[in-house]
Amino acid sequence: MADLVFLDGKFLPRQRAHISVQDRGFLFGDGVYEMIRASGGRMFEPDRHLERLESGLRALRIGVGTPSRYDLLEIARRLLEGNGLLAGDATVYLQITRGAAVRRHNFPPDATPATVFVSAATFLPLEELRHRGGSAITQPDTRWSRCHLKTVNLLPNVLAKQAAVEADVTEAVFVRDGFITEGSSTNVFGARDGELFTHPTSNHILPGITRAVVLELAAEIGLRVRETPILAAEARDLDEMFITGTTTDVLPIVRLDGRPVAGGVPGPIALLLQERLAERLEGPTRPLPLREVVA
Amino acid sequence: MADLVFLDGKFLPRQRAHISVQDRGFLFGDGVYEMIRASGGRMFEPDRHLERLESGLRALRIGVGTPSRYDLLEIARRLLEGNGLLAGDATVYLQITRGAAVRRHNFPPDATPATVFVSAATFLPLEELRHRGGSAITQPDTRWSRCHLKTVNLLPNVLAKQAAVEADVTEAVFVRDGFITEGSSTNVFGARDGELFTHPTSNHILPGITRAVVLELAAEIGLRVRETPILAAEARDLDEMFITGTTTDVLPIVRLDGRPVAGGVPGPIALLLQERLAERLEGPTRPLPLREVVA
Repeated sequence: MADLVFLDGKFLPRQRAHISVQDRGFLFGDGVYEMIRASGGRMFEPDRHLERLESGLRALRIGVGTPSRYDLLEIARRLLEGNGLLAGDATVYLQITRGAAVRRHNFPPDATPATVFVSAATFLPLEELRHRGGSAITQPDTRWSRCHLKTVNLLPNVLAKQAAVEADVTEAVFVRDGFITEGSSTNVFGARDGELFTHPTSNHILPGITRAVVLELAAEIGLRVRETPILAAEARDLDEMFITGTTTDVLPIVRLDGRPVAGGVPGPIALLLQERLAERLEGPTRPLPLREVVA
Repeated sequence: MADLVFLDGKFLPRQRAHISVQDRGFLFGDGVYEMIRASGGRMFEPDRHLERLESGLRALRIGVGTPSRYDLLEIARRLLEGNGLLAGDATVYLQITRGAAVRRHNFPPDATPATVFVSAATFLPLEELRHRGGSAITQPDTRWSRCHLKTVNLLPNVLAKQAAVEADVTEAVFVRDGFITEGSSTNVFGARDGELFTHPTSNHILPGITRAVVLELAAEIGLRVRETPILAAEARDLDEMFITGTTTDVLPIVRLDGRPVAGGVPGPIALLLQERLAERLEGPTRPLPLREVVA
């Protein structure tokens, strides 16, 4: 099956998708991105992802020639279809940068078109890990103070995730001023006495789509929720800890910095939210058999 | 004259220099760079630049297939020659990223070769501005806490420089916890009662090559120097303020946030350091006439 991607107005094989060395994504990390989950060809919460993308583009004032939300969705659909990803799990990746121009820090000339890159790939959910529970290490949150923007200035996240891989754990969890902010590519939740905790949306965390969905699911279930940061020093006293993300879903964390959290086993709240999220991913209006028809 | 650049082992025209959409420079800003000044075909302090580049590569653990310092210098020399930049002022730009691979935050497979990009361009020194003096605005230092690394995670610098351009000033100067750290692409100095001040090297500033040279020149001249940060609120009480950088040289700042600094005119210390730096740029062993012979 061809691995088609979309770049600057054209569909082409991934190996032939090249950008200029003068692209401001390459030179400055001057762009934003999104990763959307697709299940059986159906994208999960695409509007929220594209709304966040647009909000990032507005904040950074990137916009020349950027496709409409409708066009981006259509491009994503065509990639899922063209790459044989209408069955099973997949991800759609979208990145928009401020385009290619002679290198200078300030914005390029007004007419410089943005670079638009979209790709789709098959994806293997972490089924087994999700049931068994994952592990994490803490890392100092060295990032800038505009983490609510989903930019490709991702070097601190890269280094934190690499530290996690080398420590043989699932995720690295950032700690700023003693508080857990979020993971290198996930949001972090805790539960104690039946109450759910997570860092409030602020300039120090990404407003995760899965985070928002989990908060909705928690409300549906009737859980009390407090958007307040978790003290890293108190994390191991939680009844449960879990991380959320587009490719992570709801993943219980049962070890932190080498020591058990919450008795070292996934807790009931995480497992319940996991189940409810899976139902949402399947889609409320399209039961399982239909997926196979579409595929 | 052809605009040749060097990319991944080959010299080729800039318009044909393209990288994969999977390059980690594009996806994560996962790389470092240097800008070297050349004058009459002679690079200024190339060893210090390449030493800083190597130190950044070591810190980020990028290294597979990276050319030696000798090879990078040779590539730069060939670009200066091939692009007709042996006379006048030019800059050499070098960028090395962690290469192209399937997108995931942690490092790619060990054998993934780094992407090496080198280019050279003509450059017009800010002669008139340097004599008249420039202006600056302050901007909150929103950057991460590893600013000593010269990475391409440059979005905060981009936004600060754009704010400067829109305020019709020369540079944006970052303020962290009330103190001036550095400019968006320069270091900042102040002078009071014959004493020079600049932010100490730390994780909050780039150890500028021109900064280091200016400190040496100050010592030669016999100026007292204190590497201590300048309080933004006290900046206008300085006798002089100036910024330094590879393409900025020594540039007096005579207005800050719309109000005069140091009487609104360049001070004697900045002008003296400017002159001494110009002598160094010309090179101690190669007086002016010889440049024309080489060209």
